[in-house]
Amino acid sequence: MEHLNIALLGAGRIGQVHAANLAGRVAGAHLYAIADVSGEAAQRCAQHYGVAIAVDDYQRLLADPLVHAVAICTSTDTHARIIVEAAQAGKHIFCEKPIAQTLESIDLALAAVKSAGVTLQIGFNRRFDASFRRARAAVVNGEIGRLERVHIISRDPAPPPISYVRVSGGLFLDMTIHDFDMLRFLTGDEVEELFVMADALVDPAIGAAGDVDTAVIMLRFRNGAIGTIENSRRAVYGYDQRVELFGSAGALRTENHYQNSALVSDAHGVRRDLPYYFFLERYSESFAEELRAFVSTIQHSTPTPVTGWDGRVPVVMGLAAARSLRERRPVRLDEIDASWGV
Amino acid sequence: MEHLNIALLGAGRIGQVHAANLAGRVAGAHLYAIADVSGEAAQRCAQHYGVAIAVDDYQRLLADPLVHAVAICTSTDTHARIIVEAAQAGKHIFCEKPIAQTLESIDLALAAVKSAGVTLQIGFNRRFDASFRRARAAVVNGEIGRLERVHIISRDPAPPPISYVRVSGGLFLDMTIHDFDMLRFLTGDEVEELFVMADALVDPAIGAAGDVDTAVIMLRFRNGAIGTIENSRRAVYGYDQRVELFGSAGALRTENHYQNSALVSDAHGVRRDLPYYFFLERYSESFAEELRAFVSTIQHSTPTPVTGWDGRVPVVMGLAAARSLRERRPVRLDEIDASWGV
Amino acid sequence: MEHLNIALLGAGRIGQVHAANLAGRVAGAHLYAIADVSGEAAQRCAQHYGVAIAVDDYQRLLADPLVHAVAICTSTDTHARIIVEAAQAGKHIFCEKPIAQTLESIDLALAAVKSAGVTLQIGFNRRFDASFRRARAAVVNGEIGRLERVHIISRDPAPPPISYVRVSGGLFLDMTIHDFDMLRFLTGDEVEELFVMADALVDPAIGAAGDVDTAVIMLRFRNGAIGTIENSRRAVYGYDQRVELFGSAGALRTENHYQNSALVSDAHGVRRDLPYYFFLERYSESFAEELRAFVSTIQHSTPTPVTGWDGRVPVVMGLAAARSLRERRPVRLDEIDASWGV
Amino acid sequence: MEHLNIALLGAGRIGQVHAANLAGRVAGAHLYAIADVSGEAAQRCAQHYGVAIAVDDYQRLLADPLVHAVAICTSTDTHARIIVEAAQAGKHIFCEKPIAQTLESIDLALAAVKSAGVTLQIGFNRRFDASFRRARAAVVNGEIGRLERVHIISRDPAPPPISYVRVSGGLFLDMTIHDFDMLRFLTGDEVEELFVMADALVDPAIGAAGDVDTAVIMLRFRNGAIGTIENSRRAVYGYDQRVELFGSAGALRTENHYQNSALVSDAHGVRRDLPYYFFLERYSESFAEELRAFVSTIQHSTPTPVTGWDGRVPVVMGLAAARSLRERRPVRLDEIDASWGV
Repeated sequence: MEHLNIALLGAGRIGQVHAANLAGRVAGAHLYAIADVSGEAAQRCAQHYGVAIAVDDYQRLLADPLVHAVAICTSTDTHARIIVEAAQAGKHIFCEKPIAQTLESIDLALAAVKSAGVTLQIGFNRRFDASFRRARAAVVNGEIGRLERVHIISRDPAPPPISYVRVSGGLFLDMTIHDFDMLRFLTGDEVEELFVMADALVDPAIGAAGDVDTAVIMLRFRNGAIGTIENSRRAVYGYDQRVELFGSAGALRTENHYQNSALVSDAHGVRRDLPYYFFLERYSESFAEELRAFVSTIQHSTPTPVTGWDGRVPVVMGLAAARSLRERRPVRLDEIDASWGV
Repeated sequence: MEHLNIALLGAGRIGQVHAANLAGRVAGAHLYAIADVSGEAAQRCAQHYGVAIAVDDYQRLLADPLVHAVAICTSTDTHARIIVEAAQAGKHIFCEKPIAQTLESIDLALAAVKSAGVTLQIGFNRRFDASFRRARAAVVNGEIGRLERVHIISRDPAPPPISYVRVSGGLFLDMTIHDFDMLRFLTGDEVEELFVMADALVDPAIGAAGDVDTAVIMLRFRNGAIGTIENSRRAVYGYDQRVELFGSAGALRTENHYQNSALVSDAHGVRRDLPYYFFLERYSESFAEELRAFVSTIQHSTPTPVTGWDGRVPVVMGLAAARSLRERRPVRLDEIDASWGV
Repeated sequence: MEHLNIALLGAGRIGQVHAANLAGRVAGAHLYAIADVSGEAAQRCAQHYGVAIAVDDYQRLLADPLVHAVAICTSTDTHARIIVEAAQAGKHIFCEKPIAQTLESIDLALAAVKSAGVTLQIGFNRRFDASFRRARAAVVNGEIGRLERVHIISRDPAPPPISYVRVSGGLFLDMTIHDFDMLRFLTGDEVEELFVMADALVDPAIGAAGDVDTAVIMLRFRNGAIGTIENSRRAVYGYDQRVELFGSAGALRTENHYQNSALVSDAHGVRRDLPYYFFLERYSESFAEELRAFVSTIQHSTPTPVTGWDGRVPVVMGLAAARSLRERRPVRLDEIDASWGV
Repeated sequence: MEHLNIALLGAGRIGQVHAANLAGRVAGAHLYAIADVSGEAAQRCAQHYGVAIAVDDYQRLLADPLVHAVAICTSTDTHARIIVEAAQAGKHIFCEKPIAQTLESIDLALAAVKSAGVTLQIGFNRRFDASFRRARAAVVNGEIGRLERVHIISRDPAPPPISYVRVSGGLFLDMTIHDFDMLRFLTGDEVEELFVMADALVDPAIGAAGDVDTAVIMLRFRNGAIGTIENSRRAVYGYDQRVELFGSAGALRTENHYQNSALVSDAHGVRRDLPYYFFLERYSESFAEELRAFVSTIQHSTPTPVTGWDGRVPVVMGLAAARSLRERRPVRLDEIDASWGV
C-alpha cells in the first residue's frame, strides 16, 4: 500500500490538529475522509484541506472499503464504542486518550481490537516529543544509571470552563492521565502504590463541581523508584511541562520550550519571553510524529509504540488517585484492578 | 485570487526546501509547476509533492498565464537573467540570494522589476526567524534604547567542497552576505565604512583557492553604531548563529536553537546535546515564514519585506570587504558604489 | 559593646568553618577562646586563627565574664545541655542544629533560654543564602501571588560513613531537618500533615543500619499549599540544592551554584563543570552571614532571625516523617506534639 | 619566613580592597603597616583592620626592615617611581596596573626591579578569576583545539566622573588595558597589529574631554588568531564581563556572575536579577586570589604569575590603539615599540 487512506472521526480542536498533519506533514498518509456529528464542521474541515469526503455519520466511513484506518477524535464517551466498531470493520485505529473512563469499557474495546487483529495506537503524543524521547533514551542507555526518582511538572496555563470540568472525568483522568503515561514511558516500569494531596486552590468553582485543580501525586514503582507528579490547572506564565530524572549515575531534566531565544538585559533584570502558551504550540511536532509512527507501524507491520494496554493503565492509576484523595490514604493499584501485578 | 500559483525554478537543495513548504505549509500558495535543467530532477520533485507540471525549460512556465509567481532557486549566475525574463512576463518573483555578484547585473534586474511593476522578494530568510525578529522588535520598540553595538556570530558546521568554494564568489558574497543583511535588518541603518581581518585557518586548500574561511569584519554605521561580524566555515559543535545587540538602555542576545531541552548531569559535568546542525534544521520555520510573507504581500498588495535594494546592498558590502582584505585598510562603501550615501 | 567576645565550643569540621568566619569575616565579632574535648584540637585551631585561649573544658569559658557569647558546635547529644548551662551563665548562644533529638530535651533548653533572657540562634544557615533569601522575598513581596506549591531538592554528593549514619538520628533528623526549616522559611507557614515514601536505594548497608538514603516527603500546609522534599544521600554530580515555588501569580526556582561560568561546546555537546561539591563550598557565604546576623542581633537587641522555636519545629516534623515511614500512612503533626496547632 | 609583613601604600578604594584581603583572607600575609598621603585615611584604614602602623610618608615604610613587601595602590603617576624606590629598598612589590603611561617610565621601573632581584607582580586580578582561569585551561589542555578567535566583552556599568576621565590616560590605558592583558593571558600569544573604531556615544562630555566611551578593537595575533574587544563605559544592566573563545575543536564562553540564582516566571516573562554591579563585587574572589599568589610566589621563590613585562605590553597595545583611532588605520605594534617582535 503506497498511501494509507485515513478517515478522521471528529473535527473538533484536536481533530483539526490531526487533519493539518495528515494533510501535509505525514509522509505515507492520505487524509481521505472526515466525519463529524456536525456535518457542517466536517465540511469546513474537509474544504480547508482539500478532502473530498465529509459526512456526519462516521459509520459510513467504517463501511467504506477504501478507508484503511481511522483517527478517533470524537468525545471521550464515544471512544470505546467506535473502537469496537472500527475493529470489527477491520480498520486500523488511532484513538485519542482516554479510551474510556471505566475499565469495563476499555476491556471490551481492547478485546475487540485483539480479536480483529488490527493496530490500535493511543494518542499519548508526548512520548514523541524530542525532549522526553531524549529523557527516555538516557534511561535506556544507562546514562544516568539505575533510576531512583522521577518528578513531573505539568501545569496548564489556565483552567478550562466549568462546563468542561463537569464532564472531564476529573483532573486525574483528564489531565494527569498524560503524566501517568509519561511516568510509565520514562521508567519502563509499573506503579504499585500511590498517594495524593490535592485541592481546589485555583478556582473554588472547580471544587464546587467536585473536582480539584491542584494536585501532587507520589508513586512507588515496582523496582523501588519513587515518582511525583505535580499538576495545576493554572500557570500564569504559560504551559509548564518538565520532567526531572535522578539515578545512581546522574540526573536529567528537560526545560520548557520557547518560541524565541532572545535574552533582554535592562536596568531591571535579565529576561526572556514566556514559553509556548499551551499544548498546541508546545507539542506541535509530537502530534505529527505520533501519526508518522502510526503510519509506519501499519506499513511495516511493526508493534505499535503506544498500545491499548498503555491506554488502560493510566486509567487504573487515575482511579487509584481519585480513591487516595477521597480516602486520604495510600492506595495500591491492585485495589483498583484485581489483575494488577499478577 | 484565492490561491497563488507558484512555479518553482530549480529543484536542487534549497528548491526542495521551498517545494515542501509551498506544498503543505504556506496557506494561499499552490505549487503549480516545477522546472529544472535536469528534467528528471523536476519530475522527481513534482511527483513527491503531487505537482502536475514538470519541465526542463523554465521559459515554458514563464509563458504559462496560469503562473502567478516564480520562486527562483537556480544557480546564482542565472538569477539576474531569470529575474529580467520573469519580470517581463509579468510574474511576481521570489529569488534566492544573491541576485548577482556584480552591481551591473543587479541593477539591470532591478530596473526590469521596477519597469514591470511586479513584486520581487529576496530570500534573506533569517529575517523571518522568531529570535531575530524578536531582536529587531527590541530595537524598534526602544527596549534597549539607542543602538550602539551589534555583534553577529555566524559559523557553518563544516566547509563546503573546494569545488563549491571556487565558484561561490568568495566568503563575503557567499556566506557573510546573510550577515550583512542581518546587520541592516537589525539596525535599520546603513554602513559607511568597514575593515576586515581574515585568513584561511580552517583549511589551507581554501586559501589556495583564493578564498578565506575565517573572517572578522568591523563596520561603522551612519548613526555611529559599530558592528562586528565573525564568520567561520567550521564549527565542530554545529551551526552557530547568534546576534548580540547593545544599546543605551539595555542589551539583547539570542542563543542557538536546540532540538531538545534535556540537560544531563553526571560525574563529569552538566551537558546538553548540540544545537541544530545546519541551516535546514535551524531555519526551517523561517523558510516557511518568508514564503508566507511573499504570498501575503502579493495578495494584499503590501510592500515586500525584502526588496531588490535589500538584495543589492549586501553585495556592495561584500565587495567592500573583499577590497579591505586585499588592501589591508578600512574601505568606505562609496568607494565601491559611487551612488552610496548620496 | 564594640566587639562581641565569642567562645567557640567544639573545633570539629563545622566549628572550624565558624572559626574562620569569626576570625576574619564577621565585623563586630572577636573569636576570643576555643574549647574542644580534645585539647589538642582546640590548640591547633586557636593557633591557626591567633586566638589566645584554648581549653578542653568548655565550662571554664562559660565561667569567664569576658565571654559574651558562645557558638556551640559540639556533638549533637551535648547541645541541649550546653544551651542550658550557657543560658544560666548569661551567655548569648549560637547553636548548631539540631538542638536535640527529643522534644523533652529541646523544651528544657528553650525554657532555660527564656528564663535567662539571652539570645539563642539556631544554625539554619541556608536561610542566609542569597538565592533562598531571594525566593523568600518573592513570597513576601507578592511577586508570585499566593503560594500553592513548594518543591525542595536536597541531595548530598555521597553518603556519610555507616558509623555516622548509626548515630545521626536518621535521615529525617540529620539531613531533611534543613529542608523542613527551609519549607517553613520560604512559606512562613506551618505544616499540618505529611506522608513519606523512602528506601535505602543508594546503599543497602544504610538500610541494614535501620535508616533510609532516599526519601520523598509530601506535606500539607495550614493555608492549603502542598510541599514536597526530595532527599538523596548520593548525587554523583555534586551537591544538588534547589527550591521551586509556584503561586497564583507566577513561579520561582533557584539553580545550583557553580564555581565558574564557562560553557564549553565541542563535537559532543555543550557542557559546564559541576556545581560546588558540598555544603562547605556551596554555603560558604551563608555561614558568614548567619554569624553576622547573630552579632547584629545582640548588638542591636533585635529579634533573632532563627529562634529556638525554629529549632524545635523541624524536629517535630522529622519525628512525624519517621512515623509516616514506619506506619506507611499520612501523619498529622499533632500526633507527635499534642500542643501543635493549638 | 612564617608571615610576610606587607605594607599597603595608598588607602583609597582599591587599597581598601587589598587591606581587607590582607587582613583576613590571605594565609601567610600580615598587613603590617599602611601609608597614605592623607595621614587620616591611613589611620582610619589601620584602625579598621587592627594595624599598628599608619603613616603619611610611605618612604618611612620602605626604610623599615620589618617590611617584606609593599602593595602599591597610590595614584597611577606615582607607580613607577615607588617601584624604583621599593626595589632599591629590597622590598618585594605588588603594584596596581598600569605601571605607567609611558614606556620610558615603565622601562626604568622594570630595570630597577631586575637589578634588585625582587619580585614584582602587576595587579591584573582578572587572571585569577575562576571563570577566566577555566577559559585559559581549555586553551592549554587542548579542549577547544587550535585557537582561532577570542572575543572579549567588557563594559562598565556607568562612566566615571569627567574629572577622572581627564587624568585617566584615556579609555585604552585605563579600561581596555585589562582586556589587553586578558587577551594575552587567554591566548598565550602576542598581537602584531590592531585596528580601532571608537566614539563618544555614551556621553558627549567624554568626547569633549578628548576621550571615547565606546570602542571596538580588532587584533591579529602572531599565530594567526583574530581577537576583538568591545568596551563601553555604560551598561545599564551592570558590569558585563565575558569572553568567548573559538577553536578548531570547540568553543568556550563565560557568562556574567550573579548574586543569586533565582529565576522568576510571571505573566510577563522569565527573569532574573541583574549580575554583580561592578568590579568590587564581580571580582572580589580574584582580588584575594592574586594576593595569595603574590605571597606564595615569594614564600616559595617561584616565578611571579604576572610579570613586569605583562605590565608593559598592554601599555604598548593601548598606545597602538590610540594611534589607530587617531589615524583611522591598522597599526602594527612595532610602530609603537621598535623592540617588538625582535
